Amino acid sequence: MSTTTNRQILLKSRPIGAPTADNFELVNSPIPTPAAGKVLLRTTYLSLDPYMRGRMSDAPSYAPPVALGTPMVGGTIARVESSQHPDYQAGDLVLSYSGWQDYTLSDGTGLNKLAADMPQPSMALGVLGMPGFTAYMGLLDIGQPKAGDTVVVAAASGAVGSIVGQIAKLHGCRVVGIAGGEDKCRYVVEELGFDACIDRRDADFATQLAAACPAGIDVYFENVGGAVFDAVLPLLNVGARVPVCGLIASYNATDLPAGPDRLGLLMGTLLKKRIKMQGFIIFDDYGHRYPEFFSAMSIWLSQGKIKFREDIVAGLENAPQAFIGLLQGENFGKLVVRVAA
Amino acid sequence: MSTTTNRQILLKSRPIGAPTADNFELVNSPIPTPAAGKVLLRTTYLSLDPYMRGRMSDAPSYAPPVALGTPMVGGTIARVESSQHPDYQAGDLVLSYSGWQDYTLSDGTGLNKLAADMPQPSMALGVLGMPGFTAYMGLLDIGQPKAGDTVVVAAASGAVGSIVGQIAKLHGCRVVGIAGGEDKCRYVVEELGFDACIDRRDADFATQLAAACPAGIDVYFENVGGAVFDAVLPLLNVGARVPVCGLIASYNATDLPAGPDRLGLLMGTLLKKRIKMQGFIIFDDYGHRYPEFFSAMSIWLSQGKIKFREDIVAGLENAPQAFIGLLQGENFGKLVVRVAA
Repeated sequence: MSTTTNRQILLKSRPIGAPTADNFELVNSPIPTPAAGKVLLRTTYLSLDPYMRGRMSDAPSYAPPVALGTPMVGGTIARVESSQHPDYQAGDLVLSYSGWQDYTLSDGTGLNKLAADMPQPSMALGVLGMPGFTAYMGLLDIGQPKAGDTVVVAAASGAVGSIVGQIAKLHGCRVVGIAGGEDKCRYVVEELGFDACIDRRDADFATQLAAACPAGIDVYFENVGGAVFDAVLPLLNVGARVPVCGLIASYNATDLPAGPDRLGLLMGTLLKKRIKMQGFIIFDDYGHRYPEFFSAMSIWLSQGKIKFREDIVAGLENAPQAFIGLLQGENFGKLVVRVAA
Repeated sequence: MSTTTNRQILLKSRPIGAPTADNFELVNSPIPTPAAGKVLLRTTYLSLDPYMRGRMSDAPSYAPPVALGTPMVGGTIARVESSQHPDYQAGDLVLSYSGWQDYTLSDGTGLNKLAADMPQPSMALGVLGMPGFTAYMGLLDIGQPKAGDTVVVAAASGAVGSIVGQIAKLHGCRVVGIAGGEDKCRYVVEELGFDACIDRRDADFATQLAAACPAGIDVYFENVGGAVFDAVLPLLNVGARVPVCGLIASYNATDLPAGPDRLGLLMGTLLKKRIKMQGFIIFDDYGHRYPEFFSAMSIWLSQGKIKFREDIVAGLENAPQAFIGLLQGENFGKLVVRVAA
């Protein structure tokens, strides 16, 4: 780990299909010096999240792509290294959007101060940050869970899914998780308290899911898509709600799947069963409700009602490989890179 | 027209693909006699609506199928012919669900009295009935139109679409209709006051639709599906709302269309553009709000702010052919059968 140069991981080329190490380039740049009104930030933790796959492509999406030859974007925890900004001083801890690099300059826009002695600052990238907020609003505002409802969530051991399920339990729901692998499923049931968790890798996955949802599915929190959604679709109840948060199964797809074309089948199911399906982008749609979330989640955490797990990778240089693995489901818990001590 | 026998149109066989005359059978039965607590109803108007295609099939849906050998179901205006029920007397005019037949008995369940001297009782099957209520709730509650929004509605000269567009105009929206044929499009613009109407039969339909929606589409009221939805999908704006009311283009389909499979593409679009798509079944979801609708619509009608058109077919015996034509878009306005004077 260098303290005299700024290591940056740039987007070198746009992936076709799954990203590879060749799509990224690690370069060493001079550490920038803050001018008046600026602060120099030192990244301590970098969040890795599935949405970043979208930023690597230049297909139209809800946010502009990362330009080739510039640092990959990402949420970070950073320490103020030096400051020419009246509101910040050296040593301040902030939530920032510094991206995949050791150092960056900021004029303060988008920075949020954290308690300088926060015991586990990476929580601000997970359970108390974007993934936790996504789980909270998507489930409660779009999903509208009622006591007794069956709530199904995929990627159930992940940063979002694990929180969705635990909040649904707090609301009196029957909660069924879907995860990849026996270890994750065991964790979801035994540690997080879901009622059941089905291994999506099992050959009879769809049959197991149906058996675990004898009263059908009232809320399906969608963050996977693909074969998982195919198994969920016939189980959706009349009046079901489907918040669409992510579709990680298709992020690396280069072509549409072979037919038949089920677009009309999906719409017909929405009609006959009076289902609501709604996509959302957390800060665009719900930014104004972050304080409400932060307060509720802080209380649940202090009461031990919500558990979380982090998968911490050491070293900025390992971010590309960790991110590639994230898209394959290799992480176990919220994936974070420790960039500096 | 017989007044001594009860003509009934039964479902003789279930259609495969488009219904044909052979799926129906006209039979003559004795006119039933009301026992204590019953009324004998004489059908005067029978409503024909696309949802009836679903009742002819035994595929799972939101309502049970019509049993083979029993009368087709349907909303009706009826006159009380004789009564053994304390709340009704001969001559009363009621909104009923008598189905495709001259006479039926009722114990009063589901009957709604109309003013006996109502000048145009068939309105209770259209603009003041289920289609108007469907337009009102789907647009206002799910669609949430705001002044300046672009609202697109298909089957724009029909019983539902014509009302959707006019209510959207009353809310200050830009309204673009889609209809089949030049006459219908002219009517939609010149009589109903839509800003534009595109003929779905034109070869460059999708291009014309895009040109008519320079600011994209904020609300798409879906009652058609198929190629019309394909043209709409790329034009949907961030935050668009899509009430799904019907999918007439696929009601006669026997197989899913050929691939590629666009189910994931649709969900990806909902995600990236944060779109809400929601199916609804009017009386199941909104029955408790019928008085609100009836009051609002009555005022608009009395002020001349909402216009409507009926396509009245004479004679119960012509109901099957008229219904078959409805599924092909041959009607022009709300399709109603005049069963008796």
